[in-house]
Amino acid sequence: MTKPRIGVLLGDPNGVGPEIAAKMLASLDEQTTVNVLVIGDIRLLRLAEKTAGVSVPVSVIGSVEEADWTGKALPFLDVPSIEPEDVTPGQATAAGGKSCLITLRKALTMAQSGEIDGFCFAPLNKYALKLGGWEAGDEHIFFAHELGFDGPFCEHNVLEGLWTTRVTSHIALADVCANITPERVLRGIRLAHNTLGSAGYEKPRVAVAALNPHAGDGGLFGREEIDIIAPTVELARKEGIDASGPFAADTVFLKARDGAYDAVVTMYHDQGQVAMKLMGFSRGVTVSGGLPVPITTPASGTAFDIVGKGIANAEGLRQAFLLVSRMAEVKRNKERN
Amino acid sequence: MTKPRIGVLLGDPNGVGPEIAAKMLASLDEQTTVNVLVIGDIRLLRLAEKTAGVSVPVSVIGSVEEADWTGKALPFLDVPSIEPEDVTPGQATAAGGKSCLITLRKALTMAQSGEIDGFCFAPLNKYALKLGGWEAGDEHIFFAHELGFDGPFCEHNVLEGLWTTRVTSHIALADVCANITPERVLRGIRLAHNTLGSAGYEKPRVAVAALNPHAGDGGLFGREEIDIIAPTVELARKEGIDASGPFAADTVFLKARDGAYDAVVTMYHDQGQVAMKLMGFSRGVTVSGGLPVPITTPASGTAFDIVGKGIANAEGLRQAFLLVSRMAEVKRNKERN
Repeated sequence: MTKPRIGVLLGDPNGVGPEIAAKMLASLDEQTTVNVLVIGDIRLLRLAEKTAGVSVPVSVIGSVEEADWTGKALPFLDVPSIEPEDVTPGQATAAGGKSCLITLRKALTMAQSGEIDGFCFAPLNKYALKLGGWEAGDEHIFFAHELGFDGPFCEHNVLEGLWTTRVTSHIALADVCANITPERVLRGIRLAHNTLGSAGYEKPRVAVAALNPHAGDGGLFGREEIDIIAPTVELARKEGIDASGPFAADTVFLKARDGAYDAVVTMYHDQGQVAMKLMGFSRGVTVSGGLPVPITTPASGTAFDIVGKGIANAEGLRQAFLLVSRMAEVKRNKERN
Repeated sequence: MTKPRIGVLLGDPNGVGPEIAAKMLASLDEQTTVNVLVIGDIRLLRLAEKTAGVSVPVSVIGSVEEADWTGKALPFLDVPSIEPEDVTPGQATAAGGKSCLITLRKALTMAQSGEIDGFCFAPLNKYALKLGGWEAGDEHIFFAHELGFDGPFCEHNVLEGLWTTRVTSHIALADVCANITPERVLRGIRLAHNTLGSAGYEKPRVAVAALNPHAGDGGLFGREEIDIIAPTVELARKEGIDASGPFAADTVFLKARDGAYDAVVTMYHDQGQVAMKLMGFSRGVTVSGGLPVPITTPASGTAFDIVGKGIANAEGLRQAFLLVSRMAEVKRNKERN
């Protein structure tokens, strides 16, 4: 039984991605339970090592067959994606976006063919992706598109054992209520249940947030809790999901933070993001939940204002690496059984 | 120049109010800059002293003229409001609600006649108030009604120097957007500015939260920021208010917590309450902002589950007392100038 193979991608070449990847790779535990394959442009790693003040022992290869997983050097699959003179630190550019798209496509293809079992990527920039040619939405949509996946998927945010996911996301608040349907709420609960399952939770405890203040206070201000959310939680329970709620949004995160739940399904973007960011989500991880390939990234972004200073924190990427590694191991174990 | 007179009310007799009031009064600093008048049923204080395991030196009086502010004993204006046998710890009852309404009416009348300069009250229970005969809304509406006040007012939440207030509050999320009008947003900003002014802030820094995720991302999802909130912030600035925004809700609280702002004007209930509760609002204070009389209460409630155990924390009431005292002093200074 070989170890799962985890790809590590350097992110947008103009952001802090390469330097935090260098930091993370340089401090990687040798006893790691997975085989690490760095996928990127070797010239970017060399630049990043200088910025970060670290040295990453790598063995540059042209295809995964050449990889030696036993040595001290990490196999580095060289995928040229940007000319060094086109790197413009601190700027969102078409060249930077293209570099990300080339590398992500490579990783997705390798995941589909089984050459890797999952991957994490250092921060990329949505606007650069757009400039680089991906105009159809965020990176999760890009992943699904490239994988030819048409099932339900969505972004999950993870902070120290607490997961959140959303029934609606990047839409106007005025459009939220029309999108709170039994189908969508059930899909959100199932996605939370399944994605946590894919991260090794045997019976994840899924709390469902209410939509209205005080959960509508018995229908006094809003009936979605009574008419839609509560019956859907009931449906989910009948499917064997440990779902509960709806709970008032301003108390459910307190309970979840204290360990009462593993996941909170939120009804709209800011409901979860106000909470997660206050709890320290800069140390958090974003998971592309629902996809057939485990993919994670740190919650923090390209941090254009501090690029090249060597001060960017690698903890988010380290957490993203640990989480995708666990998800890949769980997937292997399930496939074996 | 006499010191401002601050009323302290015991709250719902069936909740933790009387016991935390007893704790707070027993540990009151003698050097306090205000004169304290306890207003309540003396029999409730006697019961509470036993529960809390403290002794409060009081001098029971029948009218404020009898008060001796120079001694060690606190003047206690005895307002019989409930028979001891009708006290049912841990339950919301009509008798408990009536007791609160009687005492609050007394305090409001005294404030109107200038016998006191403001008051804080230990937790009451909205449902008990309703059972007791006040069916027209929350306690802030009751105060405005009793004071014959028809100007704008609203609840402010305060935690360690950070104030929040809301443009909309206890309404369905589906009704929020229709209520985000220039008039209402401006009223919210002015209320924040004025209430902080009444608490001694010379030029409060007022941040205004956005309505949509990522503040609408340039109109991509929602235009209220562009069409309504930003122009209203501009209007407020022209009035001399140090207002700024709109800021994405999931980052504005991080900045405010770090000291960049004194107040955050939120667009809807959970936007602010998710943040405040996570930051520890159980230690917070609720202010009835906009009213002609300074009135405060702790953010925490009657805590029916721990009544009579003597374990309820008096810190919120202490903070409420300190804040109403400051507001009363500021009011006196303004009236003198």
